Amino acid sequence: MHDIKTWKHIFKLDPAKSLNDDDLRRICMSGTDAIMIGGTDNITENNISQLMHRINNYSIPLVLEISNVESVIPGFDLYFIPTVLNSSDVKYHNGMLLQALKTYGHLIDFSEVVFEGYVVLNPDCKVAKVTRANTNLTDEDIEAYAQMVNDMYRLPVMYVEYSGTYGETGMVKAAADMLTETQLFYGGGISTYEEAHAMATIADTIIVGNIIYEDMDKALKTVEIKETHK
Amino acid sequence: MHDIKTWKHIFKLDPAKSLNDDDLRRICMSGTDAIMIGGTDNITENNISQLMHRINNYSIPLVLEISNVESVIPGFDLYFIPTVLNSSDVKYHNGMLLQALKTYGHLIDFSEVVFEGYVVLNPDCKVAKVTRANTNLTDEDIEAYAQMVNDMYRLPVMYVEYSGTYGETGMVKAAADMLTETQLFYGGGISTYEEAHAMATIADTIIVGNIIYEDMDKALKTVEIKETHK
Repeated sequence: MHDIKTWKHIFKLDPAKSLNDDDLRRICMSGTDAIMIGGTDNITENNISQLMHRINNYSIPLVLEISNVESVIPGFDLYFIPTVLNSSDVKYHNGMLLQALKTYGHLIDFSEVVFEGYVVLNPDCKVAKVTRANTNLTDEDIEAYAQMVNDMYRLPVMYVEYSGTYGETGMVKAAADMLTETQLFYGGGISTYEEAHAMATIADTIIVGNIIYEDMDKALKTVEIKETHK
Repeated sequence: MHDIKTWKHIFKLDPAKSLNDDDLRRICMSGTDAIMIGGTDNITENNISQLMHRINNYSIPLVLEISNVESVIPGFDLYFIPTVLNSSDVKYHNGMLLQALKTYGHLIDFSEVVFEGYVVLNPDCKVAKVTRANTNLTDEDIEAYAQMVNDMYRLPVMYVEYSGTYGETGMVKAAADMLTETQLFYGGGISTYEEAHAMATIADTIIVGNIIYEDMDKALKTVEIKETHK
């Protein structure tokens, strides 16, 4: 069992985007704590499976973040399952989860499953649109969501997701201040070491994604926060 | 702290209905494990408060099941907060909870709070209509909800609610069979000792409500399941 509590940095790879073998090797050997495969568009069993097999050549922990029931495949170290707390559609609260449990419930090893309480904050991102998320939130909303996750649902992870844009550190801090048990993930728009450092000061774990496909050197540089945030 | 795990029998009182002092004394002295105040219609701070003060003359554990944010009042031993897992309206998943936490979050002692995962199964009951619950569920749905509550949300309580009608024991058993950690509450239509006994054989805790207002002797008789289900 992987202790995700110790993870400070995760690279998130989109199976719908291509990465050559050399770049994939650099990501896997970067010193990051884990690689998460996940995305919103064009996620298929086929492209997930291909990427999984390429990464399984390395010893890095590999996580699948499940975005639809159709593309759940075995072979990952862990499975992260999102529940989107600020979605206005019950499908993204527990509707997809219900279908997944009806289909795979008897096969699931729950010790490999981590349930993430998502709050999506960038109104322009794909995930906000798909889940019809109410992104117009105040600090008080974020505090209440954090309390909900930490004290009521007692989920292992709260994921503050600014997907595609760099977030407001004040909002992330509002969440962090309410969490005593739940681990705080921050994701969205991290493209420099400085941005990584700023969010790693507040969140327990930062997720670095898009910059991998834009500037590999800058992406790799973000792993250095592991030295300054031990 | 009350150990609700030991509770086999709960009387649920509706603050919108009247009960004379003698009947209230008989309920409080019946040997039931706790009294829960809750309802759907005409629940006000005033009628909850009055009933609470009358019951506080007895030593029985007293719980408020919160049905709206406006009628939360201090003075109870425990607060049960429902999340309706098969509601089609996010308000009854976590929407009301968000408002409650924004209003009262800083005041809440979470050691006094129990989060209940409700599945509402009687399509004709008020709570099903208010929450727009999808009550057309199969055994497989109930199993998936139970797994969701037990293994994903890890809620302390799953509440199978047939409000106003006696449920199908097969459905209740489908839930019970999936629960290893979560405590199973059954409520709905229990009006005889035999019905209480049948459900207490399957569920951890039975909730007896309406019959109190229809036939006090029969209601009190249901408490005898505590002798046969130790």
